Amino acid sequence: MSDAIRITDVTLTPVAFRDPALLNAVGVHEPYALRAVLEVHTDQGITGLGETYADQGHLRRLRQAADALVGLDVHRLGRMYAAVAAALGGDTGSDGHGLTGMITSSSTVDRVFSPFEVACLDIQGKAAGRPVSDLLGGAVRDQVPFSAYLFYKWAAHPGGEPDSWGEALDPDGIVAQARRMIDDYGFTAIKLKGGVFRPEEEIEAVRALREAFPDRPLRLDPNAAWTVDTSLMVARELDGVLEYLEDPTPGQEGMARVAREAPMPLATNMCVVAFDELKPAVALDAVQVVLSDHHYWGGLQRSKVLAGICDTFDLGLSMHSNSHLGISLAAMTHLAAATPNLTYACDTHWPWKTEEVVAPGALEFRDGSVAVPTGPGLGVELDRDALARLHEQYVSCGLRDRDDTGYMRRIDPSYEKKVPRW
Amino acid sequence: MSDAIRITDVTLTPVAFRDPALLNAVGVHEPYALRAVLEVHTDQGITGLGETYADQGHLRRLRQAADALVGLDVHRLGRMYAAVAAALGGDTGSDGHGLTGMITSSSTVDRVFSPFEVACLDIQGKAAGRPVSDLLGGAVRDQVPFSAYLFYKWAAHPGGEPDSWGEALDPDGIVAQARRMIDDYGFTAIKLKGGVFRPEEEIEAVRALREAFPDRPLRLDPNAAWTVDTSLMVARELDGVLEYLEDPTPGQEGMARVAREAPMPLATNMCVVAFDELKPAVALDAVQVVLSDHHYWGGLQRSKVLAGICDTFDLGLSMHSNSHLGISLAAMTHLAAATPNLTYACDTHWPWKTEEVVAPGALEFRDGSVAVPTGPGLGVELDRDALARLHEQYVSCGLRDRDDTGYMRRIDPSYEKKVPRW
Repeated sequence: MSDAIRITDVTLTPVAFRDPALLNAVGVHEPYALRAVLEVHTDQGITGLGETYADQGHLRRLRQAADALVGLDVHRLGRMYAAVAAALGGDTGSDGHGLTGMITSSSTVDRVFSPFEVACLDIQGKAAGRPVSDLLGGAVRDQVPFSAYLFYKWAAHPGGEPDSWGEALDPDGIVAQARRMIDDYGFTAIKLKGGVFRPEEEIEAVRALREAFPDRPLRLDPNAAWTVDTSLMVARELDGVLEYLEDPTPGQEGMARVAREAPMPLATNMCVVAFDELKPAVALDAVQVVLSDHHYWGGLQRSKVLAGICDTFDLGLSMHSNSHLGISLAAMTHLAAATPNLTYACDTHWPWKTEEVVAPGALEFRDGSVAVPTGPGLGVELDRDALARLHEQYVSCGLRDRDDTGYMRRIDPSYEKKVPRW
Repeated sequence: MSDAIRITDVTLTPVAFRDPALLNAVGVHEPYALRAVLEVHTDQGITGLGETYADQGHLRRLRQAADALVGLDVHRLGRMYAAVAAALGGDTGSDGHGLTGMITSSSTVDRVFSPFEVACLDIQGKAAGRPVSDLLGGAVRDQVPFSAYLFYKWAAHPGGEPDSWGEALDPDGIVAQARRMIDDYGFTAIKLKGGVFRPEEEIEAVRALREAFPDRPLRLDPNAAWTVDTSLMVARELDGVLEYLEDPTPGQEGMARVAREAPMPLATNMCVVAFDELKPAVALDAVQVVLSDHHYWGGLQRSKVLAGICDTFDLGLSMHSNSHLGISLAAMTHLAAATPNLTYACDTHWPWKTEEVVAPGALEFRDGSVAVPTGPGLGVELDRDALARLHEQYVSCGLRDRDDTGYMRRIDPSYEKKVPRW
């Protein structure tokens, strides 16, 4: 009989790290991004790491889940999932997961369970002497390609010091940002976060990128800022230019209407963000590419199920990113490596981050890719001093729930959240 | 860096075990059932076990696949799958997998890959000291319920000795068979293999079972022996009696027509037997329950993906069985234990089998269920004497491809295979 490895305790540490003034369809990133770091401790002395959102409602649910998981074997992920569902008891608020109000329908149980699952796979891998990718069917690629993630941005937060990237509010600024990001990291694909300026301006920015980088796949993501008609206008203008167009318009029905006429595939991390949204999306043919994200698709094993669903129902698969730290980058890299049909370069906010909680050296971008860690577990370790510092920053910064719109309205009281806007 | 566990060699042993004269919609079981036992050897001295069909075309493909897998790490299942696909190079014959011509569209790559995957999970589990269920998300149940599998049958093969079960050619014979099987094994659900006699006679048999066992879920599986109209007649007659009706009629379109009016769910292991059949089945609403079977769904991890698809697309999930030995029963039990939405009792041919290749004691039916093995890997070991004996029996019996129809026609030259028959 194999010995269980039982959870004894979970340490939950909210942290804040500095974030530039990145603009999006609902406002602007606040000066700090919030994350929660999980340490799952076991009776065998092995600890596993997880990372997730840190909004207050989410933190409260994580704590409830943690209490329900004490005593369970880290290999019994199905039982753990049931325990989390029972502990939350139907508490399915869409509030408090740090997604800016742009993702409202993801499953609460999947979102809360995810970082525990990642931590338990870290423990399983450490116990077995295997990298997490081996627990997911094994890496089919040793390097995982990520894409450059461009943002319209201000040079600084109001009243703050300028960051090193400078302002980017027009095509020239976006091309300059892309050039530095590609010089520094070697990214081979490029994504522009849109929905910030009039569609005509964003079309110009994409065309400028195409001219400056003729061979790199390009994506544009306006976060549902457009009507169906506007979406179709942009789609036609960018025919032959975009690899895919991400969430041009809100809702599966609107997306389906755009998809019927748009010349390029439509991708989403807004209208298909939970398992129960897949069946209607397939029936409507609403999207052609799903951006997976283990943070809200219930962890790494359930993200593999999503990948299998995409493969089976002729949907492409890419990967979404929120502002994240190294624990999540490690998890994303293991998952992507072990997912054969994840053939698009994955999103990452990595270059925008100047602070970290994991010890340096484990994860490096080379030619736009991250080498899959080959050591046991996730392959990353906490830097305790850094963790303490970023927790202190969380305590002192005063931010408790991500609110890009509220922050924008404090800067510009005339700003209104409007979906679709154009 | 974690050490790879590399495949050095694969031993492939075809075996034959005695099988009673069980009747079905395309003929009768031959005196011996054929299986292939795989032993996957590694450079770390750990060996893993797999079990699959043994028809000649399948054996040839297994050998091709085995050659292509030497040198690969047993944790890199995704790479192994790609290597098998490449080795088969589009060889997708529907012949030679020992399924009686009743399953013709299953994926050749999935069918060939499956026993290697099971063997590699056995090795992974042994190396990590974990049961295979732990590699699949962990058991959510410690006992896996199976159903009694009733067959119309002859007392003996022509010219052979009678088996201990006797003849069952009418409702009384079926009820007597059920009684003994339940007395011996404690099964709580009952499946009758139909498609043998006129539908009216099989309806009577099911009613007799309902009377004799008022509380046990009942299933009837005529293997597509009926037209749509006949299927609907039977469905109406057995309203309130059957848990599900399995493959009443051929093809997804016919099944969809039956499903629209039948009062009970329709199940299948004939019209949805590969991933590429799921999308049309969902679009047509052709079936309500999919019978999984890791032998043709590409192994245990891919069967978990199938389970996730069923969960996501509101399909029930049960488990199909061919005549099998203990290695497959162990694999089926680990998989079923680790699949939360596998809520139906699984099929098994176990009681019909008097010969075995695994050492006794690991797998026992109690109250209709098998306890999930808790030791490392699958939890079964080869009985080398038994393996040698059943291989000798394979060599001497002369059977090389399963052919229930041909065998029946040698006994009754007037017999014709006809789908649908009524």
